[in-house]
Amino acid sequence: MNYKMILQYDGSRYSGWQVQGNTEQTIQGKLQSVLEKMTGEEIEIHGSGRTDAGVHAMGQVANFKLQSAYEPEEIKRYCNQYLPEDIVVLEVSEVPLRFHSRLNAVKKTYCYRIFLGEKPDVFRRKYVTPVAENLNINKMKAAAEVLLGTHDFTSFCGNRHFKKSAVRTIYEIRIEEKKDELDISFTGNGFLQNMVRILTGTLLEVGTGKREVREMKEILEGRNRSLAGPMAAAKGLVLINVEYE
Amino acid sequence: MNYKMILQYDGSRYSGWQVQGNTEQTIQGKLQSVLEKMTGEEIEIHGSGRTDAGVHAMGQVANFKLQSAYEPEEIKRYCNQYLPEDIVVLEVSEVPLRFHSRLNAVKKTYCYRIFLGEKPDVFRRKYVTPVAENLNINKMKAAAEVLLGTHDFTSFCGNRHFKKSAVRTIYEIRIEEKKDELDISFTGNGFLQNMVRILTGTLLEVGTGKREVREMKEILEGRNRSLAGPMAAAKGLVLINVEYE
Repeated sequence: MNYKMILQYDGSRYSGWQVQGNTEQTIQGKLQSVLEKMTGEEIEIHGSGRTDAGVHAMGQVANFKLQSAYEPEEIKRYCNQYLPEDIVVLEVSEVPLRFHSRLNAVKKTYCYRIFLGEKPDVFRRKYVTPVAENLNINKMKAAAEVLLGTHDFTSFCGNRHFKKSAVRTIYEIRIEEKKDELDISFTGNGFLQNMVRILTGTLLEVGTGKREVREMKEILEGRNRSLAGPMAAAKGLVLINVEYE
Repeated sequence: MNYKMILQYDGSRYSGWQVQGNTEQTIQGKLQSVLEKMTGEEIEIHGSGRTDAGVHAMGQVANFKLQSAYEPEEIKRYCNQYLPEDIVVLEVSEVPLRFHSRLNAVKKTYCYRIFLGEKPDVFRRKYVTPVAENLNINKMKAAAEVLLGTHDFTSFCGNRHFKKSAVRTIYEIRIEEKKDELDISFTGNGFLQNMVRILTGTLLEVGTGKREVREMKEILEGRNRSLAGPMAAAKGLVLINVEYE
């Protein structure tokens, strides 16, 4: 049996999605240990992508296989009972054996939330990144335009030893100003390691005037990480959803 | 010297505003110990009111006296450096010696946030109370109308041994529906212990149909805590601000 799971998490306390060595403080690790406790089977849960340490999710998708059959509702209930309160399972469903949450994903949306000011209110402190400087939103929108479409995003990849293709397609970058917050949503067919955070860090440099809009094209074409801006802090980033065909 | 302080806190981890016995897990306790560390003086900080365990604040006001003079900005900076990250000082100012944050307060606003559904997203879990039943908002608004004005609110007071006057004036109760949230804001000249939470619990009983709008008048006039509804959970409540003349 193959199960698909949609889940939310507050990434603040975790070293990211992926199990690393012995540490139990990963989302994948927490899920696997609860599912193993429930089923007595050894579980490998595949996420649609590995969110970085401190990154959150509103709609992460994962799948895992079981030898014995369980009711999806039973799995959901058990997980929500035993998972820590900062990980919540929204939905479990049975899917065909060939379904793979990462390989079959066709579209992902991430949102980066910037607090416009020195210090966010205490309730948003873990979910937004404050930027005290004034931002030129129109310039940021113009810079974002350049990133749309299919490009080699090597300059925006945090993994310098990445050997596979760095070609990805960005369908949309929406920049929305709300009261004291600026939300940047990225929708694409996939994102490289740290890519959304480096894109955001670079757009912010355009917004603050450290960089010109026209540099975006040069950065893309240069295919060199050192050309792009810094990686924006993890806590402002949330994986909104993952779409399948 | 007398100083006025405006502060925010996420009340989730605290046993409320007021120092109780030995426990350090109170907002007042945390503030006093940081200010004592800074000044070497023994400090008593007066809040505009005692928020319950688990209740939050966006704009609590407090005042405290010091023998020696400090720059308000210096106090603010020091506090924000040494306070835990769930308590933030927004503003410090020097005020006349006669200023008292509780005695001089003329208006307070609290907001109770209800998540309309079974489970809020993981990011709001500490700041909203979920209500899964359908709510009749119009009936809740009609019931809230009855509470406006000056009344003896004994029926809505959590302290059964309260000996002083329970007469308070509610200026406004605003019920706002937002996507998946219902926010009830209460503005009055002061509130009794647990009063906002009991008012909310009673309005929710009207909303779910457990109680009729016309009962509100009887509850008020009966002056008996057992007539009103249950106390709504602490985590949905936030002290928005406190006004002075």
